[in-house]
Amino acid sequence: MNFKYHFFTSKVMILGLVLSIGLASGKTKDHNSKQDKQTPNFIFIYADDLGYGDLGCYGNPTIKTPNLDQMASEGVKFTQFYVASPVCTPSRAALMTGCYPKRVGLHNGVLFPHSTTGLNPKELTLADLLKSEGYETACVGKWHLGHQEEFLPESNGFDYFFGIPFSNDMSKKEQAKMGWENYKYQLPLLCGSDTLELDPDQTQLCKRLTDEAISFINTNSKDAFFLYMAHPMPHIPLYASKDFQGKSARGAYGDAVEEIDWSVGQIITTLKQLGIENNTIVVFSSDNGPWLPYKTHGGSAGPLRGGKGTTWEGGMREPCIMWSPGNIPSGMVCNEISSTLDILPTFAHFANADVSDKIKLDGQDIYNLIMEQDYSFDSPRTFFYYSSKGTIEGVRKGPWKLKAVRDTLELFNVEEDISEKYNLAQKFPKRVCELNQLILSFDKKIEQEMRPVGKISEIENSRH
Amino acid sequence: MNFKYHFFTSKVMILGLVLSIGLASGKTKDHNSKQDKQTPNFIFIYADDLGYGDLGCYGNPTIKTPNLDQMASEGVKFTQFYVASPVCTPSRAALMTGCYPKRVGLHNGVLFPHSTTGLNPKELTLADLLKSEGYETACVGKWHLGHQEEFLPESNGFDYFFGIPFSNDMSKKEQAKMGWENYKYQLPLLCGSDTLELDPDQTQLCKRLTDEAISFINTNSKDAFFLYMAHPMPHIPLYASKDFQGKSARGAYGDAVEEIDWSVGQIITTLKQLGIENNTIVVFSSDNGPWLPYKTHGGSAGPLRGGKGTTWEGGMREPCIMWSPGNIPSGMVCNEISSTLDILPTFAHFANADVSDKIKLDGQDIYNLIMEQDYSFDSPRTFFYYSSKGTIEGVRKGPWKLKAVRDTLELFNVEEDISEKYNLAQKFPKRVCELNQLILSFDKKIEQEMRPVGKISEIENSRH
Repeated sequence: MNFKYHFFTSKVMILGLVLSIGLASGKTKDHNSKQDKQTPNFIFIYADDLGYGDLGCYGNPTIKTPNLDQMASEGVKFTQFYVASPVCTPSRAALMTGCYPKRVGLHNGVLFPHSTTGLNPKELTLADLLKSEGYETACVGKWHLGHQEEFLPESNGFDYFFGIPFSNDMSKKEQAKMGWENYKYQLPLLCGSDTLELDPDQTQLCKRLTDEAISFINTNSKDAFFLYMAHPMPHIPLYASKDFQGKSARGAYGDAVEEIDWSVGQIITTLKQLGIENNTIVVFSSDNGPWLPYKTHGGSAGPLRGGKGTTWEGGMREPCIMWSPGNIPSGMVCNEISSTLDILPTFAHFANADVSDKIKLDGQDIYNLIMEQDYSFDSPRTFFYYSSKGTIEGVRKGPWKLKAVRDTLELFNVEEDISEKYNLAQKFPKRVCELNQLILSFDKKIEQEMRPVGKISEIENSRH
Repeated sequence: MNFKYHFFTSKVMILGLVLSIGLASGKTKDHNSKQDKQTPNFIFIYADDLGYGDLGCYGNPTIKTPNLDQMASEGVKFTQFYVASPVCTPSRAALMTGCYPKRVGLHNGVLFPHSTTGLNPKELTLADLLKSEGYETACVGKWHLGHQEEFLPESNGFDYFFGIPFSNDMSKKEQAKMGWENYKYQLPLLCGSDTLELDPDQTQLCKRLTDEAISFINTNSKDAFFLYMAHPMPHIPLYASKDFQGKSARGAYGDAVEEIDWSVGQIITTLKQLGIENNTIVVFSSDNGPWLPYKTHGGSAGPLRGGKGTTWEGGMREPCIMWSPGNIPSGMVCNEISSTLDILPTFAHFANADVSDKIKLDGQDIYNLIMEQDYSFDSPRTFFYYSSKGTIEGVRKGPWKLKAVRDTLELFNVEEDISEKYNLAQKFPKRVCELNQLILSFDKKIEQEMRPVGKISEIENSRH
């Protein structure tokens, strides 16, 4: 609660700071003049509960994802790309802030309709950052970082929000189908903070969100823009529009994924029609691994062990494709460790915004990795695994992963042993000890540095 | 032993038959004149024990296979492509003949240096067929269909053979390393049927085979040619040349696969240098799934269950990429059931050779599937699973797979349930019954129609 948190006393101050950095770097940005614009647009597409093995280009044998496959063959496909938590809310908090969820206080599992916390609007989000650089910003789809007005996208850097505030199963209607009769909340479809509908027809959701996304791109094609397109699927309950229902060999799950692939194709087509594909970076990933207990209604982690909710690789390693023809390299596979934590500092680099020294982040700028395939790091990248509840459970350093659950320490070489089958802890006790120290000291430090989660009561109190 | 086997009384007769079919179809082939040649060259590259999940384009997170990935993005990638047996010899017999191994008597597991059987030279092989069409034919690499002269490639339709007659572990030297001191055979490197070396340096094998392959392509670039390039790796023991040793993140297994990918790249480069890439069809696959008991020295079946030696999908479903720029469609994924059984009739179609009515095959011509993505079959394709010993263990029809081991019948929808986790036998008893009937009647029929394996004693006896 101390450290550099004094930088975050107000959003206005942060925005001022970032803007001044931008100006200090000699950047003269005229975001109304496309011809002068050197920095790219950004589209980050986030699927929900899609596993590592659920796309054709990641080895799925039955789900057809031609648009994503083509993106991969024309861009960079990452094979060791992590989310910072194996469940939704903390994972999304990390993407938005470039911080481990614990650092921003959003590590305690997912938010529910009765929750009174959310992403602290004092945090600097990716949207805040890009907005301060003159970008138009929109969040279309599922937010899940607090559904009270104070925490919604428009309170966290987005000019526009259209979508649902939490998961698509968090409604009386859906819970009743699963046998929970006492659940009392409904699923709202929001525009900004206004409720447009309750329990919207989820078969139409992907199409409507895609329409919104395309409309936003069209409207802002001459400005710099950032679109965060967060699909509510293939999280259960699974829905798809009539064009996709029953069409996939993979059942309802495949239908939902194939409609998302279609949506990606619509966005790419729009960029090409507008002639801005070379100046738009499109990134596709998912918030966590497949929800395996739902059997065929859950996805596949491919060769990886475990799924959603676990700190096995299947829970936290995700597909990630970056695409921008003529800009980002084509047909590359990047096997280096990287993470959603890196998106904020990397987009900052692309946008010529300097966040390096002023803001306490966990991510790192992977611009050189993407653009130059520069693997020459000084030391192997370190990535920490936090459970769905914020307990530290592991660390990855180079090929080594220490998995610590309660008193059990297991060591895997996850590059040689891609399915985490062979525990090498007894063979390499020193490495176990070293990595365990790393886990404990990092977790201690992050607890010390933890910044407060947004709390509805505190915000309400501060108004009086 | 009856049926249409009277067609196979002599190889000369078969060749005569095939040639006459070719002539009857009005084909006037001048294989010395490249300009007039309408039919393509063929290169079939077969890896050994490479799993479904061992290539980048099939979802491997650490093995780098840029050449095969590029082939996939420029060609057709198959996701439900089967070998006819989960072990080496019967799998290769099926590729060479277009028949289930039992039909040609090579179903009883793999051949060993003490074996006295082999691929009956009376069988019509893919090489016989293409040779009769005027192709120059070469087998470079591992044969494993009989090491006696009567069964070697040059007795089975190939003009040229350079390689090893059986698996790379079948030597005193290699078996001793694994603790088997009483093994007495050595591994020969053959040219034709001449032994060039005993226990050749296996670190050099991939490079030497690649040199042979390139030399054959260069020599025959103005003729029609068929190259069967059968890599002895990544079968254990794993070897790679100095350029690849210790270079892969995936350990020795990855080193071997990355060298094979390099070899594929060398072949593609050669075709491009000669300007014959548009008229050469390159196919890549593997003979069976990963050898899982060897832990990290075995490969990965990706999301599929089981591996080598089993009739789970991981044992028999393999990567398959078909490439011929400007000829075969680009960037396609084919999810239809297909098989090594189909290679002979399909290559026959490409080569304008008619084998449809005269020769009893199990494969089918998938030309339209490749070239037109024509999935409009009259009925779902049926594929039978035989164990490593020739016992029938299953059938795949459409998305359904019945797995029958002794008295247990399990039913899976392998398109929805890609990892064969959920046995649906109790839910669909009629389907179980129907598919079980199919298994039993097919196996009975194939036993009736079975043609004799090549036996060294019989061939020797017939000389006297």
